Amino acid sequence: MRETEIVKRIRQMAAAGIHASSIIRGIGDDCAILRPRANEDLVFTTDFVIEGRHFTHDTHAAADVGHTALARSLSDLAAMGAEPVFCLVSLAIPAKLSDRWIKDFYRGLLALASKYKITLAGGDLSRFEKVITDVMCCGRLPRGKAMLRSAAKPDDGIYVTGELGRTKRPEPRVAEGMALRRSGVKAAIDISDGLVIDLHRFCLESGVSAELDNVPVSRGASLEDALYKGEDYELLFASPRSYYRAIRIGTIRKGKPGEIKMSGKRIQVKGFDHFNESSR
Amino acid sequence: MRETEIVKRIRQMAAAGIHASSIIRGIGDDCAILRPRANEDLVFTTDFVIEGRHFTHDTHAAADVGHTALARSLSDLAAMGAEPVFCLVSLAIPAKLSDRWIKDFYRGLLALASKYKITLAGGDLSRFEKVITDVMCCGRLPRGKAMLRSAAKPDDGIYVTGELGRTKRPEPRVAEGMALRRSGVKAAIDISDGLVIDLHRFCLESGVSAELDNVPVSRGASLEDALYKGEDYELLFASPRSYYRAIRIGTIRKGKPGEIKMSGKRIQVKGFDHFNESSR
Repeated sequence: MRETEIVKRIRQMAAAGIHASSIIRGIGDDCAILRPRANEDLVFTTDFVIEGRHFTHDTHAAADVGHTALARSLSDLAAMGAEPVFCLVSLAIPAKLSDRWIKDFYRGLLALASKYKITLAGGDLSRFEKVITDVMCCGRLPRGKAMLRSAAKPDDGIYVTGELGRTKRPEPRVAEGMALRRSGVKAAIDISDGLVIDLHRFCLESGVSAELDNVPVSRGASLEDALYKGEDYELLFASPRSYYRAIRIGTIRKGKPGEIKMSGKRIQVKGFDHFNESSR
Repeated sequence: MRETEIVKRIRQMAAAGIHASSIIRGIGDDCAILRPRANEDLVFTTDFVIEGRHFTHDTHAAADVGHTALARSLSDLAAMGAEPVFCLVSLAIPAKLSDRWIKDFYRGLLALASKYKITLAGGDLSRFEKVITDVMCCGRLPRGKAMLRSAAKPDDGIYVTGELGRTKRPEPRVAEGMALRRSGVKAAIDISDGLVIDLHRFCLESGVSAELDNVPVSRGASLEDALYKGEDYELLFASPRSYYRAIRIGTIRKGKPGEIKMSGKRIQVKGFDHFNESSR
């Protein structure tokens, strides 16, 4: 298929899922156009999903790649407590992959898009010898209400939205993020690279340290998995209130920014580094 | 360098160039946050620049790759007549490239960003065996004023902002696009893949045909180059008025949508197809 025909097909598939009334122009022009509502902030994030790095054709069918590509970015919106609005999808694929693969990729992506009412508003297509996707997501929230990495305070409880350690087909915690933001939570992050590394980043931005006393381990996973394995896509948040629907795992402390203690002992900050896969 | 150190460096380099007061949070959180102004529309575009496809290390130093990666997306904002606001930069690079390469890439990108007052607000970093960039740009314009591919009308003059056919270091026509939009132009596109293919797309979206009578050829280029060679990054627009600072190349006609005639003869629609490099 030629590029113009592929774009036409994608446009037809996307048209069935135009959810955001504020997208006044999508695929087919030089840019997508968004008309912001009064008193809202918009949030933006972008994530690569690369063949051989984040998936292989052995482990992921085309629809799984589409799902994962969107899920990673949606998880960042969830961490801010934002409502999904639209996405731009950049896709490079080898000539050897069939038109069927492309169609299934968009089917997987659009199924997740439909679930969270996010509009596919544009993107870019290219040929390359491996599959590369880069998905940009935009979300909205009431002005000044975004949950931030930098808003944790000493004595806040630290919570996660689920058990950790089992790498799952990522299911972004979009509804949970919006509910937490509405209930007044100010500080959150998503666990994409591993509990310890993401909690470390969270504490660094807030200028605080953390004490863990209860790490909830998924069935079939080890404590090591729960601490260091990435792609949980649960949310981690800090709050002075208690949350019955989340699991309290520890407490924010004054102390050396970014330091994490468990059972009184400092634990090693290691986790997935996109540039050095081994730990320090 | 580890990823955290690289991100820290990029954050420092980007901090010097925070131009958009509406970016209230940039690098360092899960998402960038934008606070829209009253009565504006926001436009969004994303473009790949891929090693071996859009550049090679023989032809492009790191700073050129950074420049080109941003220029391609800025050109789409220009086509809409938008004022640049912020960008997200996704970069995958081989381990063999030095920290110097990364620094120079961002230096090239940020030099262009500074020229057009666009804030680097975030992105993604990954390792890969080739250099892949995907740059998302956001621009703003007064509500309902975006220039569109779909707004050309029969009898409009067709204009370009410069001579065609010489592939240049892309210099996006941002100021020209904003000036045209302010002067009331409704219909525009940027010439990134070649005059004929981009005019064809423009006419298709507007449901019109085009008649060319004067194609301005750059010194050292052929008419064939001017018609079919991409990466001119000039703007093409249609308007019932005349423009002294642009070159009139033809007239919009009723007739078969997308058809292009020159000297009364239909000319072949071919040009860069990202999926099939040869022409039809």
